[in-house]
Amino acid sequence: MTEPMILHEYAFSGNCYKIRLTAAHLGIPLERREYDISTGETRTPDFLANINTNGRIPVLQQGDFRLPESNAACWWLATGSALIPSDRDAQANMLRWMFWEQYDHEPNIAVLRRWMSVIGEANLDELQRMQLPLKRKAGAAALALMNDHLAGRHWFAGNAFSLADIVLYAYTHVAEAGGFTLDDYPHVQAWAAQVAALPGHIALDA
Amino acid sequence: MTEPMILHEYAFSGNCYKIRLTAAHLGIPLERREYDISTGETRTPDFLANINTNGRIPVLQQGDFRLPESNAACWWLATGSALIPSDRDAQANMLRWMFWEQYDHEPNIAVLRRWMSVIGEANLDELQRMQLPLKRKAGAAALALMNDHLAGRHWFAGNAFSLADIVLYAYTHVAEAGGFTLDDYPHVQAWAAQVAALPGHIALDA
Repeated sequence: MTEPMILHEYAFSGNCYKIRLTAAHLGIPLERREYDISTGETRTPDFLANINTNGRIPVLQQGDFRLPESNAACWWLATGSALIPSDRDAQANMLRWMFWEQYDHEPNIAVLRRWMSVIGEANLDELQRMQLPLKRKAGAAALALMNDHLAGRHWFAGNAFSLADIVLYAYTHVAEAGGFTLDDYPHVQAWAAQVAALPGHIALDA
Repeated sequence: MTEPMILHEYAFSGNCYKIRLTAAHLGIPLERREYDISTGETRTPDFLANINTNGRIPVLQQGDFRLPESNAACWWLATGSALIPSDRDAQANMLRWMFWEQYDHEPNIAVLRRWMSVIGEANLDELQRMQLPLKRKAGAAALALMNDHLAGRHWFAGNAFSLADIVLYAYTHVAEAGGFTLDDYPHVQAWAAQVAALPGHIALDA
């Protein structure tokens, strides 16, 4: 008998949503455990000892196996499925967009969403306030790069819906909460609508 | 006849070194093309149109195929080799450390190396100066997490040398240039010595 898969998460987080969306497309049921990151529930001695020494969510668990890092968890779930192209070039291109998502997209687009819609602009500290112009510029550049890539293309890698689309969709479709205007990126908008219309799709707040 | 593989790079960058180190372990020759990022050589119209619209190095090229993102390039080179574990859990664990490297390690440890040893502390702008304490703290936390993980373990994933070790080695072994003290992380030191002693290893400045 296979042990259940448990997602340790904070439902608002796009990083956690990626994993739920991957599982939904694969028809894999996940048992969800919610943590309030604002009250330090992922920094308790119990969480650090038993779930993730890095004090972060999401973590995907099955039995003794614990896997932090959202994009690695999506990979693990999707191993052997059509969500990972088997062609060498397409697979590396998919990973290219997944690494780029963590380096250039999430730190700007996801962070501004949290700052603007959870913390609130008026409550930002001085360092956060000083970083705003650069994060806005870098986030807009990330959306522009996606928009250029999607001109004449349906999906990010290998001419098919893949994990690259799932992980980029997670924070892109809610980028307006961070102050971005998706109307400025029509190819991104069309792609996001396409993702949301796929059979098996679930919403962030589902 | 196979076309040559070309690495568009800036040799000082650990992200470029990762790809050279992966290729060295696989016995794959790379043709190296150097760009001076400080004078904008990766932001010229020609570079943006023909190499990478994101204006970044490294980019790995073979014929018409162009692959940005260092960790994706390592994956592409190593596809089908022993540098990528075939076991599902070990493979996802390897990717976990590779995503973590781009999110938690590089933005602190690599950035401080550049700020301290290329730009120079006296020449930092106000925003960079304000970020110093947080980047020092986050970089130290990243090294401590690696140190804890390596206690009682030889390699990062799957009980064998893999891409996770290569990509983490790149900026870790030169972390002192950014102000970190590797003596504080003895398991990291032992692991780095082990990586450097492997047959096929090449140095960053080779």
